[in-house]
Amino acid sequence: MKQSQLFTKTRREAPKDEISKNAILLTRAGFIHKEMAGVYSYLPLGLRVLKKIENIIREEMNELGAQEIELTALQDKNLWEKTNRWDDKIVDIWFKIADGNLGLGFTHEEPLTRIMAEYISSYRDLPAYVYQFQNKFRNELRAKSGIMRGKEFLMKDLYSFSRTEEEHANFYNKVKVAYEKIFNRAGIGNRTYFATASGGSFGNISHEFQTICDAGEDSIYITNKEKREAKNKELGIENLEEKKSVEVGNIFPLGIRFSEAIGLYFKDENGENKPVVMGSYGIGLGRLMGTVVEVLSDKKGIVWPREISPFSIHLLSLSESAKAFSDEVHKTLEANKIEVLYDDRDLRAGEKFADADLIGIPAQVIIGEKSLASKTLEVKNRASGETREMTLENLINELI
Amino acid sequence: MKQSQLFTKTRREAPKDEISKNAILLTRAGFIHKEMAGVYSYLPLGLRVLKKIENIIREEMNELGAQEIELTALQDKNLWEKTNRWDDKIVDIWFKIADGNLGLGFTHEEPLTRIMAEYISSYRDLPAYVYQFQNKFRNELRAKSGIMRGKEFLMKDLYSFSRTEEEHANFYNKVKVAYEKIFNRAGIGNRTYFATASGGSFGNISHEFQTICDAGEDSIYITNKEKREAKNKELGIENLEEKKSVEVGNIFPLGIRFSEAIGLYFKDENGENKPVVMGSYGIGLGRLMGTVVEVLSDKKGIVWPREISPFSIHLLSLSESAKAFSDEVHKTLEANKIEVLYDDRDLRAGEKFADADLIGIPAQVIIGEKSLASKTLEVKNRASGETREMTLENLINELI
Repeated sequence: MKQSQLFTKTRREAPKDEISKNAILLTRAGFIHKEMAGVYSYLPLGLRVLKKIENIIREEMNELGAQEIELTALQDKNLWEKTNRWDDKIVDIWFKIADGNLGLGFTHEEPLTRIMAEYISSYRDLPAYVYQFQNKFRNELRAKSGIMRGKEFLMKDLYSFSRTEEEHANFYNKVKVAYEKIFNRAGIGNRTYFATASGGSFGNISHEFQTICDAGEDSIYITNKEKREAKNKELGIENLEEKKSVEVGNIFPLGIRFSEAIGLYFKDENGENKPVVMGSYGIGLGRLMGTVVEVLSDKKGIVWPREISPFSIHLLSLSESAKAFSDEVHKTLEANKIEVLYDDRDLRAGEKFADADLIGIPAQVIIGEKSLASKTLEVKNRASGETREMTLENLINELI
Repeated sequence: MKQSQLFTKTRREAPKDEISKNAILLTRAGFIHKEMAGVYSYLPLGLRVLKKIENIIREEMNELGAQEIELTALQDKNLWEKTNRWDDKIVDIWFKIADGNLGLGFTHEEPLTRIMAEYISSYRDLPAYVYQFQNKFRNELRAKSGIMRGKEFLMKDLYSFSRTEEEHANFYNKVKVAYEKIFNRAGIGNRTYFATASGGSFGNISHEFQTICDAGEDSIYITNKEKREAKNKELGIENLEEKKSVEVGNIFPLGIRFSEAIGLYFKDENGENKPVVMGSYGIGLGRLMGTVVEVLSDKKGIVWPREISPFSIHLLSLSESAKAFSDEVHKTLEANKIEVLYDDRDLRAGEKFADADLIGIPAQVIIGEKSLASKTLEVKNRASGETREMTLENLINELI
């Protein structure tokens, strides 16, 4: 895509009403627009990142054998009264419609359990795994962390329906592995830890994926042994180091709480009626995107990991004389299905460099007088700043 | 995908609380689930159709040079007061949050105009075309048409920002052509007409795409001359034939109403400040999907057009002895990236045929004793009922 066509522009100044790094950088780079506190629209570059994250998660969910659906935001009071989660004194983040009988879903255990009760009746119908990408609504008071904590935000929520605790535990562990893959692909695997949390929303032990991040609202305690972590000190592990962290994913064993309340039972091999054992598994996509910005950006701007970058290549054409060659490079890259943001604008080189560093596409291809002479490309790594001279052919081979 | 893995099942009986054909068939076939009147969740098969429609529309929008974004459902009272559209006496379909300062967007002219005002300042920034797929919320009283009229529904809304009325008219006509392509690809082009409507939401003439459909809530008057239609008799065309119809798309010239109210101005070539000329262009995805079901189904069930079918092939394995060959066909089709729903369930042939006809995938590949002997496939056209004998190789060549 030609940058001259992109309707957004970068800006030098931080927005006055933002304090979080992710909101400041994403706004300056034109990825998001704040509608009000905790409510952000996604502009073209931002939506591209969000969709890449969505696709990574979708691939890993499908790999688990989970089936994609889409539930609704509008929620019926009568259903949520069955699980005692309608009352504002019990759940204090509901957005409710003025007439008092409709709410906006902050999670979806209730409606999905009701749906499954229509389809599950026998042990032969189990296990089943169902997920969605759907906007949640939560009336968050402390919405000051940019897209990391929103009042309206896209979430992947997966739910598992199992016959026994053992079957549940088996899938639970598979989800853990899938989540590790997701955080690796999103570029934050090396600083993301699997943590045990006691006293979650459902009263039991739950597990979280926590990414070490100065902007985090949580803390984790990391042991000296790699990959053995715990959120709560009282779990009794020695030599703990405390770090600020962000919860980028969570997995909850729900037991039979929802199946009993809503009536999701199955007949086992002996004809006995049993409640289905459930689990839920969430990842907030904006939270993940915001965390990546928080932990990987530098003083020049954002640094996107390869798999979630809005484009693979930022092509910078530095002069009028470089235009014909740049056009050709752009065309060839796109013909090879490589996603390119092509800065074809009539601006000084310095402005183009500053914009490219702010936007954060991992590879910058710079075409100036030198490239014209040698017919090679200068390829700059956004993260390290290192440059290499390459032929177009070699670049394409590296990318596809 | 193996049908034994799909968590939904078909049902013989129509749901008791539905009167519309689309809701009855889509519920019986396991495509949707009713949460409450006018609020439907999409189950795996239904979501696949919705995503195919979304992808067709996205391709045609990108072809127009439009850029995809995603705005929010939560809407700020202060913004909508500027255009005098907050008051329930003026807009009677608002869902408002209990505290009275937030609403759920029923359309998005206001927030998008505000965003564009941050990026557009000069004639060089125009024209710009922006679209999204986003859930709208409308407090519809007459929500009895299944997914054709919902309280919460996915809409594609495109907005154009032009310098002059001429530039606007030029794009408006291009959208008309793109919409024709979309309705053709969705399988209802031959019964969809471009109609002029006077007195739309914005007081001016607007245009609608109306699909002839007995379940329609509108009427169109069709002239004898093909492709010259008008919605209102008073436009004075002779020899009119009245038909019930559904509005599957609309396009509105908005003029400068929103740009003046919200402050979206640009400096023209002479340095003069001018309001941007706007247009909006909507397609409700559930409405389109429901219309297809209404007009193309038969007494056996749904008939999906090829491009929006949840799968390309419904593979029916009729006996235990056919299993090995069916497995092989399934594997080969999927290896060729052909989307297959494989009915591997342990059921009688009659039940499989009935389910396949209800679900409505356009091509059924039937493997029974005959196929085993001849090593050819019986391929049945769901719409016509005609069958052909084909080799697997020929089938693949036809599909890819």
